[in-house]
Amino acid sequence: VVTTDAIVAGVHFLAGDPPETIAQKALRVNLSDLAAKGATPRAYLLTAAWPGDFDDAWVKAFAWGLKRDQKRFGITLIGGDTTSTPGPLMLNVVAIGEVPSGRMIARAGAKPGDEVWVTGSIGDAALGLKVLKGELELTAPHMKALVARFHIPEPKPQLGSKLIGLASAGLDVSDGLIADLGHIAAASRVSICVREADVPLSSAANAAVAKGVSLVELLTGGDDYELAFTAPVSARGRLEALAKVTGVRLTRIGEVAKGRGVSVIDGAGKAVPYSRAGYTHF
Amino acid sequence: VVTTDAIVAGVHFLAGDPPETIAQKALRVNLSDLAAKGATPRAYLLTAAWPGDFDDAWVKAFAWGLKRDQKRFGITLIGGDTTSTPGPLMLNVVAIGEVPSGRMIARAGAKPGDEVWVTGSIGDAALGLKVLKGELELTAPHMKALVARFHIPEPKPQLGSKLIGLASAGLDVSDGLIADLGHIAAASRVSICVREADVPLSSAANAAVAKGVSLVELLTGGDDYELAFTAPVSARGRLEALAKVTGVRLTRIGEVAKGRGVSVIDGAGKAVPYSRAGYTHF
Repeated sequence: VVTTDAIVAGVHFLAGDPPETIAQKALRVNLSDLAAKGATPRAYLLTAAWPGDFDDAWVKAFAWGLKRDQKRFGITLIGGDTTSTPGPLMLNVVAIGEVPSGRMIARAGAKPGDEVWVTGSIGDAALGLKVLKGELELTAPHMKALVARFHIPEPKPQLGSKLIGLASAGLDVSDGLIADLGHIAAASRVSICVREADVPLSSAANAAVAKGVSLVELLTGGDDYELAFTAPVSARGRLEALAKVTGVRLTRIGEVAKGRGVSVIDGAGKAVPYSRAGYTHF
Repeated sequence: VVTTDAIVAGVHFLAGDPPETIAQKALRVNLSDLAAKGATPRAYLLTAAWPGDFDDAWVKAFAWGLKRDQKRFGITLIGGDTTSTPGPLMLNVVAIGEVPSGRMIARAGAKPGDEVWVTGSIGDAALGLKVLKGELELTAPHMKALVARFHIPEPKPQLGSKLIGLASAGLDVSDGLIADLGHIAAASRVSICVREADVPLSSAANAAVAKGVSLVELLTGGDDYELAFTAPVSARGRLEALAKVTGVRLTRIGEVAKGRGVSVIDGAGKAVPYSRAGYTHF
């Protein structure tokens, strides 16, 4: 499996973010893609476009971030390109992973009757960005937790490869939960219904909702880098066991049916209108 | 073989360049890398960071350039990433090629006594950029030829795979001939001596030299995307035959010896001082 994801200062991270977390984010958004495909990470290439105003200390901290994650995720830098740019720092990583031949988890494959699952909690990174922009105030530990989720995603490689044979379709949540489930629905030619109240939120996100942040923002904010996948009802027991073994929280949030598109229902079963499904670049 | 090369507006091309040639350059600088390794192109990924001020006509012309080169070079787009950027247009291509196991042409491998070869002509693209910047005036056909070389490199995939078993080391000339031969010398732990007068120049480049442009500029200008390689003397006959079969001009420009670094000698055998070896980004 070969995957590529770029991050740009001012779009995916802020220019003033700690260099080691920028390095980790560049790498991890790609590890998240590999995990979503059921692939085990092997190697990566890094293209860096530098504005030219970075000092040695910055680059050293950046390299330290890469080194730390290389060790943790068992992945090695095997090449890349370095260029100057008159624009913002941009980092493009190409990650290469291994998957048993013909068993990659694709976007197509979800079937009516399947259940929709998601890892971890949704909306934290989008809230972390709001905190960094000064648009959201919570308790100090909550704000710290949300900012950490924005700075450093937590990919789930330990889970990804074990989903082979269980998940019928899958991807990682980067544009926003609703938008990304829309990609599964479109590729699989099915409809997906999400129960808004079942989407897992962190305690910090719950505190933000209590302060008036809308659930819509969390379900469309993006940058989550959690895995979303569909699986037949028959896989439920094995998935619950897998959650225990890997320590990754797994939550059932909806169902697959015939039809097209993604719908969201509230606790009373009423459709919730979503004017936008996720982050769009243009 | 997996290789990646990025191009940035204002660094590798000009923002006002024709969109189809920008697409072709993004792809071809990578095809040139594959050829240098002896690899046959198979597939590529494209990451595009768009400033957001591109209209449909621009994107259509860009896609047309990609399509044209996909057909010509037998390569298919298999993935990528699209993002917005507050900076200039940046395109990162990852090209994947195939080479018989263990037979890739590396930078290490040049041996004392080997000869140094280069394809095509050197310095045209750097002169093309000077023309575009209004720094060089020649006859209209000469200026047109040089600008074309800057806009659209001519990778040599038809030659690359046939160099396996003949070339002892190789790469493509992107930073500048002297700098890139320096990479071979360093990786191979040898020295390389280049005969300045033997470096192949186009008639347009010769006209520029007659107008006062120094040879140093041509040998360090970069952006050539020609192949430079070393080969034992015993391969000379087969290489000359290969030049005839493929229609690619091949020229012997120097020798490999014990020692370190790259030296350049003039027609009288006297060392020519080179204060810079190639284009540096910082």
